Amino acid sequence: MTKYRVAVHIVPRKGLLDPQGKAVAGALHTLGYANVADVHVGRHLVIETSAADANAAEAAVKEMCTRLLANPVTEDYEIAAVQPA
Amino acid sequence: MTKYRVAVHIVPRKGLLDPQGKAVAGALHTLGYANVADVHVGRHLVIETSAADANAAEAAVKEMCTRLLANPVTEDYEIAAVQPA
Repeated sequence: MTKYRVAVHIVPRKGLLDPQGKAVAGALHTLGYANVADVHVGRHLVIETSAADANAAEAAVKEMCTRLLANPVTEDYEIAAVQPA
Repeated sequence: MTKYRVAVHIVPRKGLLDPQGKAVAGALHTLGYANVADVHVGRHLVIETSAADANAAEAAVKEMCTRLLANPVTEDYEIAAVQPA
């Protein structure tokens, strides 16, 4: 078994209202960043887990996302990186 | 001016307690993922902004992180990607 660091992005599904993103965009406009068109706020998780190989680590984390980490109704997830820890 | 999508990771500073990460790790262990050693939970932001070029877009977002988005005491930030929107 090898230890892997798997980075996951969990973001609001496109088309759904992103209140956090709107709030951050508003605050940035207030600070003078008028060029900011939109902001999307999601979660960045780094999971350190042992697995037989990189594919097994990725598959396990995908299962974790489906079962626990990402809300299937309002969120999408993507595996950003799989690296040996 | 060109529109850019800048992805930013804002993560708890190493060495500081990450209660969210501990909670997620505990939940994953409860679900049977005993191989999970550690979990770090941060924020993933995608900022759509117009700028003269990619460097200017990156510089503006770094300034936004320093002034507003990242807590200078407890968080670190990294620019994950700068892409034309």
